[in-house]
Amino acid sequence: MGEAPPVSPLAPKSFPRLPVIDGVRFASIAAGVRYGGRTDVMLAQLAPGTAIAGVFTKSATRSAAVLDCQAKIGAGNSSEAAAIIVNSGNANAFTGKNGTQATYAVTKAVAQTLDLPESRVFSSSTGVIGEPLPHDRITAKLDALAKSLSAEAIEDAANAIRTTDTFAKGAGGSVEIDGQTVRIAGIAKGSGMIAPDMATMLVYIFTDARIDQPVLQSMVSALNKKTFNCITVDSDTSTSDTLLVAATGASGVQVSETSIPFMEALRNVMLDLAHQVVRDGEGATKFVEISVTGAASDDEARIHALSIANSPLVKTALAGEDPNWGRVVMAIGKSGARADRDAISIWFGDILVAHEGWVDPGYDEEKAAEYMKNQELTISVDLGLGGGTAHVWTCDLTHGYISINADYRS
Amino acid sequence: MGEAPPVSPLAPKSFPRLPVIDGVRFASIAAGVRYGGRTDVMLAQLAPGTAIAGVFTKSATRSAAVLDCQAKIGAGNSSEAAAIIVNSGNANAFTGKNGTQATYAVTKAVAQTLDLPESRVFSSSTGVIGEPLPHDRITAKLDALAKSLSAEAIEDAANAIRTTDTFAKGAGGSVEIDGQTVRIAGIAKGSGMIAPDMATMLVYIFTDARIDQPVLQSMVSALNKKTFNCITVDSDTSTSDTLLVAATGASGVQVSETSIPFMEALRNVMLDLAHQVVRDGEGATKFVEISVTGAASDDEARIHALSIANSPLVKTALAGEDPNWGRVVMAIGKSGARADRDAISIWFGDILVAHEGWVDPGYDEEKAAEYMKNQELTISVDLGLGGGTAHVWTCDLTHGYISINADYRS
Repeated sequence: MGEAPPVSPLAPKSFPRLPVIDGVRFASIAAGVRYGGRTDVMLAQLAPGTAIAGVFTKSATRSAAVLDCQAKIGAGNSSEAAAIIVNSGNANAFTGKNGTQATYAVTKAVAQTLDLPESRVFSSSTGVIGEPLPHDRITAKLDALAKSLSAEAIEDAANAIRTTDTFAKGAGGSVEIDGQTVRIAGIAKGSGMIAPDMATMLVYIFTDARIDQPVLQSMVSALNKKTFNCITVDSDTSTSDTLLVAATGASGVQVSETSIPFMEALRNVMLDLAHQVVRDGEGATKFVEISVTGAASDDEARIHALSIANSPLVKTALAGEDPNWGRVVMAIGKSGARADRDAISIWFGDILVAHEGWVDPGYDEEKAAEYMKNQELTISVDLGLGGGTAHVWTCDLTHGYISINADYRS
Repeated sequence: MGEAPPVSPLAPKSFPRLPVIDGVRFASIAAGVRYGGRTDVMLAQLAPGTAIAGVFTKSATRSAAVLDCQAKIGAGNSSEAAAIIVNSGNANAFTGKNGTQATYAVTKAVAQTLDLPESRVFSSSTGVIGEPLPHDRITAKLDALAKSLSAEAIEDAANAIRTTDTFAKGAGGSVEIDGQTVRIAGIAKGSGMIAPDMATMLVYIFTDARIDQPVLQSMVSALNKKTFNCITVDSDTSTSDTLLVAATGASGVQVSETSIPFMEALRNVMLDLAHQVVRDGEGATKFVEISVTGAASDDEARIHALSIANSPLVKTALAGEDPNWGRVVMAIGKSGARADRDAISIWFGDILVAHEGWVDPGYDEEKAAEYMKNQELTISVDLGLGGGTAHVWTCDLTHGYISINADYRS
């Protein structure tokens, strides 16, 4: 892969201090799946009683590991212990029957090593597509992984799952429920194909709350719609995207579907990780929120917001620090959702740019150009039609993206 | 706009020799709409009896000129003379009521100058969005334009409508019908914001065939689906896309809806112009045909083909001459149309890459990498599901695209 790219200018200053989650232990190791000189496999061991919820790529060509996870979510016996095993370097995607066998070989070996039922072992693979996964290299390291499990090794785990990521991604928080503390900590990887031959996005979140699996699944599915499903780097969707949330119950605090404080805390962790993925968008130099209001419905607001966020012409204008609101209008127009040209208002930050179908009389392009120099930008659109709203997050499209992706495999 | 970019490496060697179309005269002039030192307005005068058909952008924020053309197509009296007026430099899009007035001012002045009914004057504007069209600069030149009309000035007209185009686009042909010759000649502009529905693409095609307007409209709509609606540069759709086809009838040869030779000749001109637009794709270094067969339906084949053609990861791999078929699988998977991972076959040129869900045992990556060095490439996908087929044409995504679009307005 040549020299490692520099750390994204949008990266947080450092990996956050994350709370230790009772009931989870982590280990990571260098198995040589593809890369040399770095860790590339992580194992998380989960206490008996852990509920696990998941959300996965909708790709019609999803990987063997994703299909295996989907079959197991909600199906295993929660009273048993569980595990998550993840490798980077090879996505084991589009590898035919061999791929299914490789996933089975890994999950079966983890089950044996940790003495778990196979139905409680979840796996992910991320990296190049279409090459056979050298699963023996992973299974050869399971004993060593099992021996080094530690409750405090979450940052190492975040590093082991990186591919083209320029920084390790973590987020955490805690919340008081009935006078007791519940903790949440999560890690993620992803930077391209967000929507990447590798920016597959993988996310693993852990909490010591006690939550019934169906309740957890319904929370995670709902929160995913407003977090990970609202980010886009390049409109490309991985065959391996996986979000797993594991609730160990070790705090003894029962969380119900109506626990707003827990929902908020989990949402904050998910949104923080989602934003970090955008901040590591391949070649990104701008972190951009697209806010749409006044659409005919929330769904239509999201269609407009994603059309703006995915438009190559909008994204290159952002890279060029050009307040080119005409391209925003273009993206609204092509989205397929309803719009009335003469009812649209557009703001860059607090600057009203366009109003009632034309540039606002008070618009000062110099001020707008000055605003565009910020590293963090907001584009707001009001469609003037109804009450539909959406927020999505994206980055700019730069020479860096082309450099990274025009020779990824070489 | 700084220095003019170099001519696309995919450009034809020269502007073709086009047949003179009896019943059409062209003029172009430098009106200073935005650019200095070049022509930016073209006028085409059409003989009485000319039938005019059109296809336009589906953008919800389409421009005043597009709305005006749409209202006039099929509505005016074909026995009257007609005209087409086009300016570059300013799209007169998202300019509120002022925009509607500007279009009216221009078309009305053309009608007066050439003594035509307003209902027979069609206009287009292309260039920046959101700035008022200085229509007085255009109308001030109408007398001069009218005086310089010439049947042989089509190449100058093709030059006057260019914006970021690196070469003027023309295509023509002739066909024998009942022992008599019918001629077709067309011009186009467009190089970015190109996606089906259509792109800022402007196309004007002229023929001396005699065709009833409804017949011409139905031919043009049908042929558009397989030509201009099958090209994509960047997935962005313009607010101004316009295709007008004018049949003067001056040859005296009546063409009916069942005239296969005429349909083929018109199709060849449309496809040639569509390909030239892709060949001038901003920053393009590769001309790529995506061919999809075996889909559940033609519509689903087209969805897959466009998903591949528009994927930033596929397009950057093409730029990098990387036979990265994994990204093709990814794009199929995310398209939303039906696919069975283990039934997909993929070829680069004649090289079978993937088969039955995995890399073909005979695949030789060195050969594929050698193939990718060609300037013209074909990616073929068979989905193994049904009889649906589609062909779309696109280009690669390069540093050139970023350079052009990160500072288009400066």
